[in-house]
Amino acid sequence: MSRSVPGATRRADARQNVEKILDAAIDCLSRNSDASVVQIAHAAGVGRVTLYGHFPSRDSLIEAALTRLLAQGDEVLEDLDLTGDPRIALDALIRSSWLLIAQASAVLEAAQAVLPSGRIHALHARPEQRVRDLITRGQAKGVFRDDLPASWLASALHHVLKGAAADVANGTLDPEDAPQFVTQIVLAAYTPRA
Amino acid sequence: MSRSVPGATRRADARQNVEKILDAAIDCLSRNSDASVVQIAHAAGVGRVTLYGHFPSRDSLIEAALTRLLAQGDEVLEDLDLTGDPRIALDALIRSSWLLIAQASAVLEAAQAVLPSGRIHALHARPEQRVRDLITRGQAKGVFRDDLPASWLASALHHVLKGAAADVANGTLDPEDAPQFVTQIVLAAYTPRA
Repeated sequence: MSRSVPGATRRADARQNVEKILDAAIDCLSRNSDASVVQIAHAAGVGRVTLYGHFPSRDSLIEAALTRLLAQGDEVLEDLDLTGDPRIALDALIRSSWLLIAQASAVLEAAQAVLPSGRIHALHARPEQRVRDLITRGQAKGVFRDDLPASWLASALHHVLKGAAADVANGTLDPEDAPQFVTQIVLAAYTPRA
Repeated sequence: MSRSVPGATRRADARQNVEKILDAAIDCLSRNSDASVVQIAHAAGVGRVTLYGHFPSRDSLIEAALTRLLAQGDEVLEDLDLTGDPRIALDALIRSSWLLIAQASAVLEAAQAVLPSGRIHALHARPEQRVRDLITRGQAKGVFRDDLPASWLASALHHVLKGAAADVANGTLDPEDAPQFVTQIVLAAYTPRA
């Protein structure tokens, strides 16, 4: 079915390069939020000219990397059934998205240095809303505490996830332990007071 | 009793300048971990030459600011009675040290960019040990959970404190609410599972 005309090949190569560059950007920025375009091009195995052909500036590359990460995170969340017991849903949410959230927060840090805050807020409004909805539903059902605002419960989850990602990065937390440690801390923190 | 000889006056002025510079360094670095020596001198109301007379480099100023903050934090902890019920002790610890810990973590971030990690570790080993001891004691008494390692419980506290400090800085958390919100999340997170 596929015809190997030069134009189609070029487009396929271009798509592949974009994929490689975005993967490399996410990887490099997760390790170091100051990673340069040269480092990212090197990690992607493409030349700087090729990279700039797809992303005219470091800012546009960071924005694309963040958009991609958040879209991936949103896909993961979309595939989850978050409609059952909110405690089980929260556990599932943390386990299946923890690495993406950890990477996103590192890329987010890079983005905060270069993108307008309104743009960043718009980009991560959807995944944030999903978490907030789950917490609100748990509060309404009486399985999550409601003596603290949902916004603070969501922030606390975010802080523990982000911190755990940093602990894994600096070698003080085993990546195998991280998701269950986060879940156990957060579920206990969300439990209504006796 | 005091004699206003020029030498004594100069020494008193110098001490006062050092105080002003360190206060300004802590304040500036808490807001922006990339704060420059010029910005810090300006905030302190001293000239750059005066600043460099006391601190020959930005690194030495950051180290002095971190040392001072951690010493202040340690004094606060030393004045607390942490020997009673570990839950009440944890509450007291968070309430009385939260702002210092929040500032320290911002200055720590600045320090991480310029000081060797061994030096940083040595500087905050003492306050860290106090928190760790309190957690271990609570675990031994059965009032804190022991299904998670004390190191992770200490890290989770650190992450929530640091995150709350960032929330206050970006205006999403009321500074009046912050200490009690942190305490309520952390105490619940530390409670042994039923």
